[in-house]
Amino acid sequence: MNFHILTLFPEMVMNGLNTSIIGRAVNAGLLSIEAVNIRDYAFNKHQSVDDYPYGGGAGMLMQAEPVYLAHEAVAEKIRSRRPSGQSRPRTVYLSPQGDVFDQKMAEELAQEEDLILLCGHYEGIDERVLEEVVTDYVSIGDYVLTGGELPAMVMVDAISRLVPGVLHNDVSAEFESFQDNLLEYPQYSRPEEWHGKKVPSVLLSGHHANIEKWRREQSIIRTYERRPDLLEKCELTEKEKQWLNSYKISGNGT
Amino acid sequence: MNFHILTLFPEMVMNGLNTSIIGRAVNAGLLSIEAVNIRDYAFNKHQSVDDYPYGGGAGMLMQAEPVYLAHEAVAEKIRSRRPSGQSRPRTVYLSPQGDVFDQKMAEELAQEEDLILLCGHYEGIDERVLEEVVTDYVSIGDYVLTGGELPAMVMVDAISRLVPGVLHNDVSAEFESFQDNLLEYPQYSRPEEWHGKKVPSVLLSGHHANIEKWRREQSIIRTYERRPDLLEKCELTEKEKQWLNSYKISGNGT
Repeated sequence: MNFHILTLFPEMVMNGLNTSIIGRAVNAGLLSIEAVNIRDYAFNKHQSVDDYPYGGGAGMLMQAEPVYLAHEAVAEKIRSRRPSGQSRPRTVYLSPQGDVFDQKMAEELAQEEDLILLCGHYEGIDERVLEEVVTDYVSIGDYVLTGGELPAMVMVDAISRLVPGVLHNDVSAEFESFQDNLLEYPQYSRPEEWHGKKVPSVLLSGHHANIEKWRREQSIIRTYERRPDLLEKCELTEKEKQWLNSYKISGNGT
Repeated sequence: MNFHILTLFPEMVMNGLNTSIIGRAVNAGLLSIEAVNIRDYAFNKHQSVDDYPYGGGAGMLMQAEPVYLAHEAVAEKIRSRRPSGQSRPRTVYLSPQGDVFDQKMAEELAQEEDLILLCGHYEGIDERVLEEVVTDYVSIGDYVLTGGELPAMVMVDAISRLVPGVLHNDVSAEFESFQDNLLEYPQYSRPEEWHGKKVPSVLLSGHHANIEKWRREQSIIRTYERRPDLLEKCELTEKEKQWLNSYKISGNGT
C-alpha cells in the first residue's frame, strides 16, 4: 500500500513514521510512504503558500493553487502506474470537520492501493481546492490540533498495521481492542509477584479454556465499566448477558 | 507547562514535536517537553523491557519494573521542584481502553503544571504497574495503533496550544471547531476567482455584521450536515433554531 502525504512539514511526518513496526514494513516493501512538500508547488518566488482569509479574522489560510498542483503531481503519478484505476484517487483531508476515524474506517481504507492524505496548517485550506480534490473528510477526534500532520501519521499507523504481513506476528491483530466492540483484557508478565501484587492464578493454571473464559469476562467487565457505549454494539451470548447481569448486581461476577 | 513522556522511542516523539508552533513555544520557554527512555531503567544487562504474557497469547508485554522506575524518576523530579504539590503526579496512560480525549479534556489538562504521559508498546503494559502509577486512562479515538507515541504527541499538541502565549496570535483560538460544539465555517483566500469558483460575495462586502452572520450560519449548516450529534449539544438562539428549520425544509437557508 502506498501513502502519499501532502504537507508543509515533510520531515516531521517522515521522522515520526520511520521507526519500529512501520519502518520495518517499509523496508520489507510492504508499504511505501512519501511526504510531498506543498511548498515546492508555490507559484511565487518566495515559495509562500498562505494568505489572509477573505472577510477578515485571525490567522492565515493555505491557498488553493499550491495544494492543487501538489495533489495533481501525485495523482498523475498514481494514474500513470495504473491506467485502469479511478481517475480521482482517494484523497483524505484531515480536518475536525470530517467523519470521525475509527477501526472500521481503517479496515476499509486498508483495501486501497494508494491513499493521499492532505494536511492543513494555519487556519485551514481555501475551500475551493478542497471541493476539487478531496474525496473523504476525516477527523481523528473531537479536539483541535496545530495541523493535519499528526492525524495523518495516526491514520497511516492504524491503517498500515492492517495490511497483511505488516505486523511481525499476524496473530497479534487477532484479539485486540474494538474487536467485537470489546476492550482488551488486562495482561501480566513476569515476575509472578510484583510489589505484593500477584498474577491472577487462572493465568498460571495452563487450563486454556478457563483462561479464554476469564479473558473474555474481563473484556466484558472493562467495556461495561469504561465504555458502556461500545457494549451496546457488542454481540454477547445469552449466557454472557446473564453473567454480566449478575456481575452488575453482585459486583464480582459470581 | 511541562510534559514528561515515558516511551521506548524518545527520538520519534521529540522529532515529531520539535517543529512549528510547538517548537517555537518550547524555545520561548512556555513549554518543556522531555522524552524519557524506559529502556534506561531496565534492570537487566540486556536492557530488555518486554516478556511473554502469562496465560499465553501472541506478542510481548512491557514489564512492570522498568516502567515503574522510569515513572518514579520523573515523579521524584516533579516532587522536588514543588514539595507542596500532589504526591502522585498526574499520569496519563495512552490506551484504547481509556476515556475518549476531546477538547474539554484538553482544556482541563492544560491547567496542570506537569503532565506525565506513559506510552505502551507491543501488546501493552503489565496491569500491576498501571494500577500503581496511572491517574488517567485516555484514548484518542476508537482505533488501534502500534504504540502510545502518536497519541501522546496528539495530546501534547492539543493541550499545548491552549497554554496562554503558545499560539502566535491568541485570537486564533477564539473561534475554531468545537467552540459552542459547532464546526468551523468555510474559508477563502486570494485569488477572488480560482478554477471558475468565486469567493462568496458577502466576504468581500466589508460588512462585518453580515460576515459574522454568514459564518455562524455556515457553521450551523456544516454541523447539521456532517455532525448532527454535536448539534444536539450546541446552544442556538431561538432565531437560529427557526432559521435552521427553514434551511432543513428549503435546503438553502432562505
